[in-house]
Amino acid sequence: MTAQNENRTMFYGKGDVFVYRTFVQPLTGLRKIPESSFTERDNTIFGFNCQISLKGEAFLSSFTEGDNSLVVATDSMKNIIHRQAANYQGNTAEGFLKFICEVFLDKYSHIDAVELTATEVPFDHVLVPKGEGHENSDVVYRCSRNERATTTIEVKRTPTGSKIVKHSSGIVDVHLIKVKGSSFYGFIQDEYTTLPEAQDRPLFIYLDFDWEYSRWEDGTGADPEKYVAAEQICDIANTVFHELNNRSIQQLIYHIGIRILERFPQLANVQFKTNNRTWETVVETIPNSEGSVYQEPRPPYGFQGFVVTQEDVKQKKAADSTVGASR
Amino acid sequence: MTAQNENRTMFYGKGDVFVYRTFVQPLTGLRKIPESSFTERDNTIFGFNCQISLKGEAFLSSFTEGDNSLVVATDSMKNIIHRQAANYQGNTAEGFLKFICEVFLDKYSHIDAVELTATEVPFDHVLVPKGEGHENSDVVYRCSRNERATTTIEVKRTPTGSKIVKHSSGIVDVHLIKVKGSSFYGFIQDEYTTLPEAQDRPLFIYLDFDWEYSRWEDGTGADPEKYVAAEQICDIANTVFHELNNRSIQQLIYHIGIRILERFPQLANVQFKTNNRTWETVVETIPNSEGSVYQEPRPPYGFQGFVVTQEDVKQKKAADSTVGASR
Amino acid sequence: MTAQNENRTMFYGKGDVFVYRTFVQPLTGLRKIPESSFTERDNTIFGFNCQISLKGEAFLSSFTEGDNSLVVATDSMKNIIHRQAANYQGNTAEGFLKFICEVFLDKYSHIDAVELTATEVPFDHVLVPKGEGHENSDVVYRCSRNERATTTIEVKRTPTGSKIVKHSSGIVDVHLIKVKGSSFYGFIQDEYTTLPEAQDRPLFIYLDFDWEYSRWEDGTGADPEKYVAAEQICDIANTVFHELNNRSIQQLIYHIGIRILERFPQLANVQFKTNNRTWETVVETIPNSEGSVYQEPRPPYGFQGFVVTQEDVKQKKAADSTVGASR
Amino acid sequence: MTAQNENRTMFYGKGDVFVYRTFVQPLTGLRKIPESSFTERDNTIFGFNCQISLKGEAFLSSFTEGDNSLVVATDSMKNIIHRQAANYQGNTAEGFLKFICEVFLDKYSHIDAVELTATEVPFDHVLVPKGEGHENSDVVYRCSRNERATTTIEVKRTPTGSKIVKHSSGIVDVHLIKVKGSSFYGFIQDEYTTLPEAQDRPLFIYLDFDWEYSRWEDGTGADPEKYVAAEQICDIANTVFHELNNRSIQQLIYHIGIRILERFPQLANVQFKTNNRTWETVVETIPNSEGSVYQEPRPPYGFQGFVVTQEDVKQKKAADSTVGASR
Repeated sequence: MTAQNENRTMFYGKGDVFVYRTFVQPLTGLRKIPESSFTERDNTIFGFNCQISLKGEAFLSSFTEGDNSLVVATDSMKNIIHRQAANYQGNTAEGFLKFICEVFLDKYSHIDAVELTATEVPFDHVLVPKGEGHENSDVVYRCSRNERATTTIEVKRTPTGSKIVKHSSGIVDVHLIKVKGSSFYGFIQDEYTTLPEAQDRPLFIYLDFDWEYSRWEDGTGADPEKYVAAEQICDIANTVFHELNNRSIQQLIYHIGIRILERFPQLANVQFKTNNRTWETVVETIPNSEGSVYQEPRPPYGFQGFVVTQEDVKQKKAADSTVGASR
Repeated sequence: MTAQNENRTMFYGKGDVFVYRTFVQPLTGLRKIPESSFTERDNTIFGFNCQISLKGEAFLSSFTEGDNSLVVATDSMKNIIHRQAANYQGNTAEGFLKFICEVFLDKYSHIDAVELTATEVPFDHVLVPKGEGHENSDVVYRCSRNERATTTIEVKRTPTGSKIVKHSSGIVDVHLIKVKGSSFYGFIQDEYTTLPEAQDRPLFIYLDFDWEYSRWEDGTGADPEKYVAAEQICDIANTVFHELNNRSIQQLIYHIGIRILERFPQLANVQFKTNNRTWETVVETIPNSEGSVYQEPRPPYGFQGFVVTQEDVKQKKAADSTVGASR
Repeated sequence: MTAQNENRTMFYGKGDVFVYRTFVQPLTGLRKIPESSFTERDNTIFGFNCQISLKGEAFLSSFTEGDNSLVVATDSMKNIIHRQAANYQGNTAEGFLKFICEVFLDKYSHIDAVELTATEVPFDHVLVPKGEGHENSDVVYRCSRNERATTTIEVKRTPTGSKIVKHSSGIVDVHLIKVKGSSFYGFIQDEYTTLPEAQDRPLFIYLDFDWEYSRWEDGTGADPEKYVAAEQICDIANTVFHELNNRSIQQLIYHIGIRILERFPQLANVQFKTNNRTWETVVETIPNSEGSVYQEPRPPYGFQGFVVTQEDVKQKKAADSTVGASR
Repeated sequence: MTAQNENRTMFYGKGDVFVYRTFVQPLTGLRKIPESSFTERDNTIFGFNCQISLKGEAFLSSFTEGDNSLVVATDSMKNIIHRQAANYQGNTAEGFLKFICEVFLDKYSHIDAVELTATEVPFDHVLVPKGEGHENSDVVYRCSRNERATTTIEVKRTPTGSKIVKHSSGIVDVHLIKVKGSSFYGFIQDEYTTLPEAQDRPLFIYLDFDWEYSRWEDGTGADPEKYVAAEQICDIANTVFHELNNRSIQQLIYHIGIRILERFPQLANVQFKTNNRTWETVVETIPNSEGSVYQEPRPPYGFQGFVVTQEDVKQKKAADSTVGASR
């Protein structure tokens, strides 16, 4: 039976475990990059929506026999995350997840692996009066429903101790528009084509990213110089979008990925899921104005999935230098 | 039949009419207030989700007889909003709505009244590199899903011309938390009470506001010194929340309302709808830390509805001066 | 101050108060109508999402002074609804709401009025084997996310006892399509018109209804012969939609309203909010098939608001008999 | 480069492609099972939300070079699905997806593989008067927002023709409650445990299922005797839930899976994703009533993931016969 079970899907856990801790120590000492003015997270509110899964051969009898004797109630999982959040000494989501996974593996010897995902609940600064000017409030924050950082980790028990078998960091629901400087033309024209070519369209995209560190330890923030903040990744995306006169979302995300991996050589790859929400033109030209009138696109929506790796950076450099040399 | 129809609900229209216009002239010249650093809207993207309703006795036969001869197809309503958006010369939502309502009343003489609501689709600035530092991109924007400005207007045909019979401006889905400096105690204790008193709770609120100008013309932005930007209203809310050691949401919104009406005497009133999303405490004290651990509140959610008027400002001043005099 | 306060918006309360009670006595003895086979509700699960608001002059100081001494915590309101649900002796939402409102007015003498809304959480029967055939399970139910019944009531304290000042029953989110037998033509054609006329379109509508009893007591279910079940109202809508070769949603809802008021003379009126989600044609004719291919409509969406009253029934009968007489 | 690309994520496509076709030929001739009275789908409305992805080495230059010359616009993909829907001759979602995938592979020789998912847009029958009784309308349907059937298929081009490399059928968002006859006790008790044991709880579950045929051809409906309708799967779930005095969701889904695979030996496995939404008790006993009062559970939510295979059926039979023999 073992062989089958090792391959079969068998897990259980708890989702939507929201946990908030206030006044966690700030994350400082990040490496500066030209694309970003982000230098630190104050961590006054450290808030996440967590999802935890337990895996293990020992759980099989709870399915086949209704034997609950080895079942950690999912309600108890929630309690562990909530209470142990008080004991975490670090200042990043990645470090927090690792800490919680270890708590589970240490406490329950029949668990084979723990998978834990956290999605940030982001809180933005708000300005309040200070003397003649304004400064960030240190007590009032705005809860944002815009892009959110995410992290996933899976830790497995092995004969020689626990091992990280999966990990990634990311950011989801980045919604950006570039009002001019994007085109889409030269695509296949046949009997199914109704989309007009566009020399200059207001490109509106949804982006989800994930990135993987070559050494997962770099992602814990223990050495902040090695840590990559989701805020910096967003700023790179904004900058490349701003700079590149792009021909498609495909081309745009390739360039965003290359730039991220150039800035952060400690990352192994960047994974993209993108989505096209470009408006449709209603009134192209308005007298005495640079503007146009647009309407919401109708569904359906185009999407892209792509991974950029350090190998791509290397190949691009090689190709670019060849072009340079031949000039 | 007329008497009945005048009072009965009878309207039809089009909802989710998204309209975007780029490069509308900026809104500048706003009055500065201490609570806000907001001074202008660049209007590079002027985007709204509109809902339009037509009213009129003439539409009765379309219901009772299925006679469509006086029906303006709702698809045509959408076309009017889209195409006429190119012709609007101003720079505020309020002015845009008035402009569109007049187009309908001028074009179709059998329409008695037009009600039009617009909810902003907000686009935030993003920073990109500029020299050694960073500046706002002039082409890339982030589409925000946070708070959004709203406006509603109803214009009615009268023998002496069109008349504005309803108007308000507002902002919805403001989500704010104050991590310390809020209490809630002293409420009724009886056999139904299970909520503990709180001397210091992390107050998390959802706010929707609406405000009405005493003279609606002040809301068009024609005289920007008289115009009240939703961004300024938010900044006042942030500031009062930051400053006031509040005893309840009720008390907080009263004070926010008073401050708004003091800063902007051209407003007649401010209307609040609020909602309580305060976290529940899991771990109250953490060694060597000012922080605590909290969890998401369970539904249901408390709410409040309240209006503050210039009469309240007057009464408060009178009361405050009495208190001052008696000291 | 009184005059102002009586007119101003001032209330607070609790929303999303979900309450479920099992094995409530069934609702039987409903009047049969030709359009419906519905005869009873088994009430094995009696489940609602409630929203309660309290109103009263006495609450003003909680806003202006932060004085909580007369504040019933919204958490306590939730407790009252939950605990008192066990004491309700009837079998309808309308009766339940009246019962809860009275509890509040009896318990707290400083409350002037209570407004309470309930939206049904509907549970459908599922079939299970019984002998050679199948029957409804008496323990397993499917929670439905389709149309849901609603009820609202406001009860006010007066010198001569409590008085119902507002009440209605309804059903929301009815989504119906008629694949053939609907047209829309003859509407205004002008420079803004792009919608083609349709002699036969697949009309897809969203409907929300509310109905008001002439005597609210008829809505409590105390006399089930007088009670109108939301299920019967839906069946009338289905039937009229099936029968009528309609020219527009406007015409359709007028006829549904008339039929409802004819079947149930104890109702004073029916209020409609409707919405058009009709598909767009992609392939009109398919060889050897009656069918077509369609796509989802693009936003925006057309809507209608209309009230049909017993006066309309009377006028229609008069008009119909005139037509009949003149033949 | 090839080696890397074969393993990397690279695809693009179109999501939310809603397609509706009316009057498709009915699906009849299904095998009858004791748990279900379902015998045929009338297919008057054949409606799906599709998501299509194209894969292929040839697309790499669209990312790295912005070269669109091999790009099939996602708008064209939508057109292909819409127009080719008219040419499908069968009567199941599974057959439809296979048909569309082949259209893409035949038309564009540079595509390596096509992945296509369809989620049903379900339309329920409504009853209308017929003689003294009622019957299903043949033109009016209710669009349901309850559980929906799903299908996924991936077809890959190989030197010897196209090959199905992935396929499954399923149903999502099944929401069921059993008001009595479920327990949960005997789980681990330690310092993290706060959940009380339950001898009889109102078990409320969300279920998503997927099933895989041993031979995918059985899933096309060409031989309806071999086809498994999602409606039959639901009926088995309802029946097992009704019959089994369950000790946990884990045990319940194991038994549902076993029953499904016993009834349909042509299936290789059943995959479950489940979720626990069990209410919390507020008032346990009500005088003169079998009922209780409950409230909505608070988040977070427990979940389970599990696969049951024909090997499990075999092992269970062996175990059951051993138990029987030893008696």
